[in-house]
Amino acid sequence: MKNDKIVLDHGTGAKLSHELISLIVETLGDVYIGKMEDSAVLPITGDRIAVTTDSFVVTPVFFGNGDIGKISVCGTVNDIAVSGAKPLYLTLAMILETGFPIADLVKILTSIRNASKEANIKIVAGDTKVVNEGEIDKICINTTGVGIFEREPLNMNKIESGDKLILSGYIGNHSIHLLSVRVGLGYEKRIMSDCAPLNGLIEELLNAVPAGSIKTIRDVTRGGLSSVLNEFSGHIGKSIVIEEEKLPIMPETAMASDMLGINPIHLANEGCICLFVKPEVEEKVLEIMKKHKYGQKAVTIGSVSNEKSTDVVMIKVDGSSKIVEELIGMELPRLC
Amino acid sequence: MKNDKIVLDHGTGAKLSHELISLIVETLGDVYIGKMEDSAVLPITGDRIAVTTDSFVVTPVFFGNGDIGKISVCGTVNDIAVSGAKPLYLTLAMILETGFPIADLVKILTSIRNASKEANIKIVAGDTKVVNEGEIDKICINTTGVGIFEREPLNMNKIESGDKLILSGYIGNHSIHLLSVRVGLGYEKRIMSDCAPLNGLIEELLNAVPAGSIKTIRDVTRGGLSSVLNEFSGHIGKSIVIEEEKLPIMPETAMASDMLGINPIHLANEGCICLFVKPEVEEKVLEIMKKHKYGQKAVTIGSVSNEKSTDVVMIKVDGSSKIVEELIGMELPRLC
Repeated sequence: MKNDKIVLDHGTGAKLSHELISLIVETLGDVYIGKMEDSAVLPITGDRIAVTTDSFVVTPVFFGNGDIGKISVCGTVNDIAVSGAKPLYLTLAMILETGFPIADLVKILTSIRNASKEANIKIVAGDTKVVNEGEIDKICINTTGVGIFEREPLNMNKIESGDKLILSGYIGNHSIHLLSVRVGLGYEKRIMSDCAPLNGLIEELLNAVPAGSIKTIRDVTRGGLSSVLNEFSGHIGKSIVIEEEKLPIMPETAMASDMLGINPIHLANEGCICLFVKPEVEEKVLEIMKKHKYGQKAVTIGSVSNEKSTDVVMIKVDGSSKIVEELIGMELPRLC
Repeated sequence: MKNDKIVLDHGTGAKLSHELISLIVETLGDVYIGKMEDSAVLPITGDRIAVTTDSFVVTPVFFGNGDIGKISVCGTVNDIAVSGAKPLYLTLAMILETGFPIADLVKILTSIRNASKEANIKIVAGDTKVVNEGEIDKICINTTGVGIFEREPLNMNKIESGDKLILSGYIGNHSIHLLSVRVGLGYEKRIMSDCAPLNGLIEELLNAVPAGSIKTIRDVTRGGLSSVLNEFSGHIGKSIVIEEEKLPIMPETAMASDMLGINPIHLANEGCICLFVKPEVEEKVLEIMKKHKYGQKAVTIGSVSNEKSTDVVMIKVDGSSKIVEELIGMELPRLC
């Protein structure tokens, strides 16, 4: 590359565009299997696919233990995996601001390559647009994922009273880490983002227990656990009861959240899933998760009650209970 | 909706996000077949799919005969269709700037619905992010398309000497229209964007002629015809010869281009394809195209020569010839 920063002509489809695309393709290496044609032709098995899309507007672009590139892969891989599908392919579309350092782009692409390798997916098509300075904040990434079903799709309609609710790990860390990096709260070295591709863990779990005994899996991202659980209780029409003292929250995260006046239950994560499972497989699921590097803090936090209701109820440490509301808003943008 | 403008909390995953998502889903109507789950489960036939992705950063967002929504559907549908696949599904990811009028969003979504209906595709998954004012210019859209192959994928390796090069219609109009709207050149009422979904036309063509007689199709977007033809000649290693007087350029577009000091051959289009076809089917292809509303100005503009070369050669009106270079840059951003 002659330029060390992105210029407008990197996006106009002419010669400089080709230079930029070559850099992208070379940096992605064997993770990229697309061609120069307009669309990729991909082998597929089965008669159903899973498709999901996500745009990433993370700020800051680089943080303690990751960057927007890593999140862009993990977020979409996890969205596919929680449906019960095996993620195979990702598309990668980037919008770049003029002046964005090429070296930073290479760092992000390297993260994308590494996360893709870990998740065992291929990048199959790409798009790069360039806008003037000030028309975007540095870089936005969209990834769209395609997966195949080697088993029945998971389905929240199967959730029943008595099903156990398991969380894979600490909540709130991703948000607190990013907020701390942004404003220098001082927690950014002690609380790291949980960003990780969870498809390996999910596949291991689904392989280990009888079909249908894991009812549904959801990644706990934007809106946090409160949003996910309210969506579930609203959908199944039964109250979900969780125990406050079981919630896996790091002491530092609890402190930082207190300081910020927000409950980690509302915070976004990037490597945390919740599962509704039959009671018979609860122990097995926990055992497998705890052995996996992304599930060491796995814990049962509650269950589905008999009560017809759309409430999420939290039993507090003192034995009293309160309704976990979904927040109306919290103005914590650009965490994912 | 209580708000008439986008606010940050429309993107945080909590209650206001659901309100916005409901508005999006309702406005898209029966074109949207996604669920509230993280990913869509989609039926698919065959053992190969086509996948393509595109981000759209069009300015202005609304123009004479379209908007960013229409372009977002047509661009991706066309990318899938030119591969020889039948476009079925689109994902829709939007990044919105705080303060963006909800009414404008509804207009854009209505365009997306209308274009999707015309292209006969379904929107299957979505994502919406909101950023602060000034962190993005109004709205960016990403669409990713999935198609199935009901026939062999088209393949530019099949292009041979003697193959005819057909263009579906006027070049340059989309770019000139948008540039004219931007700066008030005065052409914006006389030259309209060519933005259109071309999958119907392409399917009709592929059904009408023997398999393999249409070698390859490409949509002539960013970088214009010069970029597409140089890519082809570079790939096949044979010179492509075109005749200047055959190029379908509206007189007004020629005038405007002259004024701007740019050749329409370098300009982006959004509803124009070029095809390499066996000479035996040239007439049939032209006949079908001219009857179709998006191919009325179809014309053969050249052919593939015997000469081993990577040049694109233009025979000028006076009989002399010149090499059509791809531009290094032209700083015409945000046309698609």
